[in-house]
Amino acid sequence: MHFASDNWSGAHPSIAENLTRYASGFASAYGTSDLDKAVEDRFSAIFERQVAVFFVATGTAANSLALASLAKAGGVSFCHADAHVNADEGGAPEFLTGATRLFPVEGAEGKIDPRALDTAIARFEPASPHHGRPMAVTVTQATEVGTVYSLDELDAIAAVAKSRNLPLHMDGARFANALVSLGLTPAEMTWKRGIDILSFGGTKNGCWCAEAIVFFNPDMAADMPFIRKRSAQLFSKSRFISAQLEAYLDGGLWLELARHSNAMADRLRAGLSAKNTARLAWDTSANEVFAVIERSATERARYKGAKFYDWQPPQGWLPLPAENETLVRLVTSFATTTDEVDQFIEVV
Amino acid sequence: MHFASDNWSGAHPSIAENLTRYASGFASAYGTSDLDKAVEDRFSAIFERQVAVFFVATGTAANSLALASLAKAGGVSFCHADAHVNADEGGAPEFLTGATRLFPVEGAEGKIDPRALDTAIARFEPASPHHGRPMAVTVTQATEVGTVYSLDELDAIAAVAKSRNLPLHMDGARFANALVSLGLTPAEMTWKRGIDILSFGGTKNGCWCAEAIVFFNPDMAADMPFIRKRSAQLFSKSRFISAQLEAYLDGGLWLELARHSNAMADRLRAGLSAKNTARLAWDTSANEVFAVIERSATERARYKGAKFYDWQPPQGWLPLPAENETLVRLVTSFATTTDEVDQFIEVV
Amino acid sequence: MHFASDNWSGAHPSIAENLTRYASGFASAYGTSDLDKAVEDRFSAIFERQVAVFFVATGTAANSLALASLAKAGGVSFCHADAHVNADEGGAPEFLTGATRLFPVEGAEGKIDPRALDTAIARFEPASPHHGRPMAVTVTQATEVGTVYSLDELDAIAAVAKSRNLPLHMDGARFANALVSLGLTPAEMTWKRGIDILSFGGTKNGCWCAEAIVFFNPDMAADMPFIRKRSAQLFSKSRFISAQLEAYLDGGLWLELARHSNAMADRLRAGLSAKNTARLAWDTSANEVFAVIERSATERARYKGAKFYDWQPPQGWLPLPAENETLVRLVTSFATTTDEVDQFIEVV
Amino acid sequence: MHFASDNWSGAHPSIAENLTRYASGFASAYGTSDLDKAVEDRFSAIFERQVAVFFVATGTAANSLALASLAKAGGVSFCHADAHVNADEGGAPEFLTGATRLFPVEGAEGKIDPRALDTAIARFEPASPHHGRPMAVTVTQATEVGTVYSLDELDAIAAVAKSRNLPLHMDGARFANALVSLGLTPAEMTWKRGIDILSFGGTKNGCWCAEAIVFFNPDMAADMPFIRKRSAQLFSKSRFISAQLEAYLDGGLWLELARHSNAMADRLRAGLSAKNTARLAWDTSANEVFAVIERSATERARYKGAKFYDWQPPQGWLPLPAENETLVRLVTSFATTTDEVDQFIEVV
Repeated sequence: MHFASDNWSGAHPSIAENLTRYASGFASAYGTSDLDKAVEDRFSAIFERQVAVFFVATGTAANSLALASLAKAGGVSFCHADAHVNADEGGAPEFLTGATRLFPVEGAEGKIDPRALDTAIARFEPASPHHGRPMAVTVTQATEVGTVYSLDELDAIAAVAKSRNLPLHMDGARFANALVSLGLTPAEMTWKRGIDILSFGGTKNGCWCAEAIVFFNPDMAADMPFIRKRSAQLFSKSRFISAQLEAYLDGGLWLELARHSNAMADRLRAGLSAKNTARLAWDTSANEVFAVIERSATERARYKGAKFYDWQPPQGWLPLPAENETLVRLVTSFATTTDEVDQFIEVV
Repeated sequence: MHFASDNWSGAHPSIAENLTRYASGFASAYGTSDLDKAVEDRFSAIFERQVAVFFVATGTAANSLALASLAKAGGVSFCHADAHVNADEGGAPEFLTGATRLFPVEGAEGKIDPRALDTAIARFEPASPHHGRPMAVTVTQATEVGTVYSLDELDAIAAVAKSRNLPLHMDGARFANALVSLGLTPAEMTWKRGIDILSFGGTKNGCWCAEAIVFFNPDMAADMPFIRKRSAQLFSKSRFISAQLEAYLDGGLWLELARHSNAMADRLRAGLSAKNTARLAWDTSANEVFAVIERSATERARYKGAKFYDWQPPQGWLPLPAENETLVRLVTSFATTTDEVDQFIEVV
Repeated sequence: MHFASDNWSGAHPSIAENLTRYASGFASAYGTSDLDKAVEDRFSAIFERQVAVFFVATGTAANSLALASLAKAGGVSFCHADAHVNADEGGAPEFLTGATRLFPVEGAEGKIDPRALDTAIARFEPASPHHGRPMAVTVTQATEVGTVYSLDELDAIAAVAKSRNLPLHMDGARFANALVSLGLTPAEMTWKRGIDILSFGGTKNGCWCAEAIVFFNPDMAADMPFIRKRSAQLFSKSRFISAQLEAYLDGGLWLELARHSNAMADRLRAGLSAKNTARLAWDTSANEVFAVIERSATERARYKGAKFYDWQPPQGWLPLPAENETLVRLVTSFATTTDEVDQFIEVV
Repeated sequence: MHFASDNWSGAHPSIAENLTRYASGFASAYGTSDLDKAVEDRFSAIFERQVAVFFVATGTAANSLALASLAKAGGVSFCHADAHVNADEGGAPEFLTGATRLFPVEGAEGKIDPRALDTAIARFEPASPHHGRPMAVTVTQATEVGTVYSLDELDAIAAVAKSRNLPLHMDGARFANALVSLGLTPAEMTWKRGIDILSFGGTKNGCWCAEAIVFFNPDMAADMPFIRKRSAQLFSKSRFISAQLEAYLDGGLWLELARHSNAMADRLRAGLSAKNTARLAWDTSANEVFAVIERSATERARYKGAKFYDWQPPQGWLPLPAENETLVRLVTSFATTTDEVDQFIEVV
């Protein structure tokens, strides 16, 4: 019963196989091999547009270097208060952008409130050396709390960003889960909404380690080769990323894995909703479930070997758990089985 | 005939297999899994000492973050002029250490001259805010030009560093090749010589991506978890590094691969020395061969499909190639075959 | 009627005279002259303790480099949301500390609420590479909104900082104004309260340019000479700062100037309180007055040449101005005259 | 007998007087006052071109922020090995440019050799993430060793920079001394030669503290307000710089002071050349004299109270001093008297 995180899973067999397949043979290094280029082309095909793709080591690197490509002195980037860049990246976005600042914006359900965003940006306009100047907006899709921005919600964020002349970045650590949840094409959820740069995450959805920064306007990426190397994120045998992504993207495996993962979350949601000892804390659409569960039930589940984390109740937009309850986060992955889900539901 | 670089090779079958083996199953993330810890313990065993181990994405990251752990305002690190940190890391050592400086020191055959090192350090002593202050010495073993520091040579460098109270870092991107070339234990080539921090490279010697920073005094590593995360170098599914290293270290595979690689270089050296059209540019002991070859012969080899790079002739310690000659670098790897070597020798 | 800012004033005649006095003659540079050392000794005498003193160019530099001396990877410093470091220093604290983060804490009247501070710090404990680690607490005395922490209030902040093992910095851009407002000795308002580092500001109170970082434990300042030079804040003819501070501190001039400045603010407060067209927005004790004034009255005052800024009404702890009212900030200085004050009161 | 450095002198009486003159009265802060703007206009007049001017605290700041305005990831700036940025600024250029690198170029008499410069730049071309990319060339006029680039020499440097598409910066800490030595207009020695950005130094030539960054193409300065504030170099009472520069530039005082200073150096040069105990180490044209003097004579001079520094003999382009000789640096300033010079010559 592994619901701690989707990064506790390993790699999908097809991905491991593809690594084995490419293990023999030689190819040029640093992202110049035929396989690297083929995978880059695949990205352009998937996004229905010529894109520039840069592999990096971690999701934190993808987010940080995407922002670094937009960095300017006194720059301020706007994100949700609970966004990964703000809450869980140990200062990497600041460090790797040359000390630009993140400005947290509130909004229910882990989503930036467009009006709060506009108010926040307005604090820094007109730009001044004293208070700094707006530099970027970054949204997380799916969010840290399992919700998914609708097209309208993305459009509203993009409208604010564009009206303020700010580039828009999307942290897609769980991009595939959001995509299949909305039933959209990659293009529809990104550049057609006004997204300029995407952190495309494969690691949480079945790869070992496959994160890419995708620029929808390749001209914006002119400095990226230097920014990436300066941050020690240029792999020599970059084929080992390409090999993962080739298998990941091939035949829509990535979407299939995300659909499975989301379906397991659906099953969890349905099962928990039907219990007396548990209720959904809020509605989620991707592969994360947040539930308020009686403490005795969570203890029982852990005793039986279930892995999951307690979660800090968000402030302001949700009734807090009672004394004898706990807010928990349950994450499914490509490797989650229906048995695990059913067993967990039974136990709590 | 692949002699362009050891990072053009893929991964050893045992390493690919081990990735497949661990692909299923769940484990805690961010370096906390049982496998991560087992591999860390293996490092302590191999180095005959309790060490602290930090996986990072690239050799550049290993070097840069090792230096970052020693960083101080106005700090200057001393390296060979041709060292990878100085010549090929795109400013990452400076950027990731908070803008400390590298000071290149000369020395024949890619090795720091101990007297030149002492003179260089002396320029910054006593420390002053104007000219800065010494911070670290870093040596490359094997060097960028295929040579290997002898124990006496390492001792001489360490004596200078210690007399100046400077910590000593070793860039071991080709650590295994140097080790088997000298026939030493890992302890003998590192902390017994006064090395404080090692960049332990596995990528060039048969892994896909396996670089580790090894602290021989774990107390010096107190800040490293924060430094690593700040630089976006903390893998979530860190098991994929551990799995590679488990296979790499198991049963001495790493030494076996390095021995093969070095033997292929020996064969190249012997073969080229016997030719009229070629001569060794200088003596090397690890898996790199530098040869001066008649241009017509290199053209012939390339026409037949051989891959290798021309090399910029180093200044001052070597007769320059003649008009009709080229200095070339030939790198062997775990995947090099005797056929490739023999074919190359025949062609040139 | 100059109430725009205390930095709109020039320099006190005694300070200008002292600059003239030292203009002839030679003295060693970079803070090593007899005068530099005499002024440093004067600081130790004034603070009744051996202190280490570093002159820098601006208050922003004093704050930023004080924090830089405490910097660590993933470090987070806690300040009031309206603190100068957070609101008005253009990212300098982040940039000059190597990209550490500021975490704004709320509190009425521009003062950090001790419980909110403790809650904020607790979010980062235990330290983790993911969310970072606490690094420092910084308080502003007098605050940005003209209030002054009482001894008890400072003690409460210090108690939180010490219980969390955090060093405590004081931004004393208006140190003298706070000091005379409370009627304390410099020691009582700083190290006796647990302050470790002080930004001692002279510029706003009658100097041209005189800002100093004061370490109450000189051992904590070991890296400061390097940190200051690295940030290009080491003056060559540092005597021009010392000469200002010699005159400033001599015979208690600095306290006299602050008393005058505060008295002018008192006169403003009293005068405005007695008007129908105006009321004090909140109580202040130093040389800043915040008043809610009928818009027609502010327009009249500006027409008559009065200089002052409108102020953004703080959220949550104050009834907002009505439609026809404006919140304004009025700052007095050593150079403010009773005539100016009386004229302003008459006009509004 | 003060020949230690021109920054051991104080301020010219006219400059001190002007500070006194502006000490009373109010003016808007942060570089927005009428006086600030008038002095900026004066710069445009002096340089016969619309320029953008930014005051900063130190020469190190001027150089570092000039380079920061040109910074890019992986960027390399080329300077003479003995340049102040490389030898005496404590890492500030690296730190304040976001960790770009300085690459020292050799050349006799403290001047960059144009061919060596071209070779050095060529090492980084074509740009690559591995070795980085050229970013700027910076020359020092007058040089650190008292020499002055001729127009032809500047043209040769500029030709290299322009052929490599690199912006050209001039460190003019002793700009006035070079200018009067060559008998040129400010325009002739800067933008007419291809200089893009100038560090204009007033401190060494009679100001207390007056350094400005001058952009000959104001469009290149768009980010400077933010860069300067981020580095804590924006003065609040910036008038205290303007007041110095107003007097400094008024009626050509700056040129008169430089002429005096240079004349004192001429007198020193002539006097020393005529002695048996001394000889000029190399020819200089500005206000620095480098002489090889019998050790007994330097000891005698110091015993009599003369202040000057021994100098590290430069390598390669000069016969080294004999055993019983010392290479010394003698710096004159606006405040040097003929009596001092004559007394020194008599003593040695």
